Amino acid sequence: MDRTRLRRKAQRGSHDRAVIDTILDEALVCHVGFTSGHGPVVIPTAFVRIGDDLYLHGATGNAMLSALATGLDACVEITLLDGLVLARTAFHHSVNYRSVIVFGRARRVDDPERKRTALAALIDKLDPQRSAACRPPNHKELASTQVIAMPLAEASAKIRTGPPVPDEGEDLHLPYWHGVIPLVTTRGTPVPAA
Amino acid sequence: MDRTRLRRKAQRGSHDRAVIDTILDEALVCHVGFTSGHGPVVIPTAFVRIGDDLYLHGATGNAMLSALATGLDACVEITLLDGLVLARTAFHHSVNYRSVIVFGRARRVDDPERKRTALAALIDKLDPQRSAACRPPNHKELASTQVIAMPLAEASAKIRTGPPVPDEGEDLHLPYWHGVIPLVTTRGTPVPAA
Repeated sequence: MDRTRLRRKAQRGSHDRAVIDTILDEALVCHVGFTSGHGPVVIPTAFVRIGDDLYLHGATGNAMLSALATGLDACVEITLLDGLVLARTAFHHSVNYRSVIVFGRARRVDDPERKRTALAALIDKLDPQRSAACRPPNHKELASTQVIAMPLAEASAKIRTGPPVPDEGEDLHLPYWHGVIPLVTTRGTPVPAA
Repeated sequence: MDRTRLRRKAQRGSHDRAVIDTILDEALVCHVGFTSGHGPVVIPTAFVRIGDDLYLHGATGNAMLSALATGLDACVEITLLDGLVLARTAFHHSVNYRSVIVFGRARRVDDPERKRTALAALIDKLDPQRSAACRPPNHKELASTQVIAMPLAEASAKIRTGPPVPDEGEDLHLPYWHGVIPLVTTRGTPVPAA
């Protein structure tokens, strides 16, 4: 579809689901865009991919999820920042990143077993196997939670990796350090609740 | 304005500019939402705050910036993920985060000195003082770059910190570890370009 066509720097783009899925399965937060009565809105929220869908969840009173469940056009964007790209010239400074943009319309997930599966996957994404190491949702908790699924049919990835683009001419002789400062996100020492 | 009113979990919200600015000045990437001819779109991009505006930049041919510069309604969202909140019950799992949402309309920055200031600030955000340790943009580079400014007049922050919300009743006796796993983003060893 035209809106998933990559415009700027198309050589950085991909529609390969393996590439897309790797990014989706590493990232914890997505950025959900939709058009409200007040204009465009972007809201961050946790998500998990299962098969060909992204699953989002929240309280039954969550206005964004309720709006999306009506089948509004939506855009879900995910970005991992991998490095700072420092060049000899200001113009060639950049960042290394891996991002995914998904266009589509979400649907409400009503089936209780499907909801349980999605909620367990959300928790396992925070910490592997965690859904088996806590009390599962009871009927009241499940009823107070809404889950929606956003299809990956219209998804694309965009990635920048590697060093700064090569300088040319006189810039090659500039004395400035140039290269990449990697950004690394790690899990620190767990802090038990009091 | 009504659209900056915090709805869900309003106790986590703030309109305090000092709180908002701290988040804006730490984050490197923002998520820009607007409504295109194809529906809602969210695009990630670098940004920097100077005073009461967020500055975004890109090539003169960048469709998003060109669209925003016409004064389209936009929403810019920024999120820092600080920790994974593991509770005794699946229902109380969460994440710790600091986010900002800005509604408004951007304006194009035409003044060359203002553009230079914004571009230098963008580079200094990647690495302090870096704008003085590289060749500044020349006239051609400056002319091929567009800069837009988005006012912070309609901005709000939302923050979750601390341990899981307390369990109650029988859940207090569940044997599962509960607490917070901090997420820490660090700069790795710089990799010089070949």
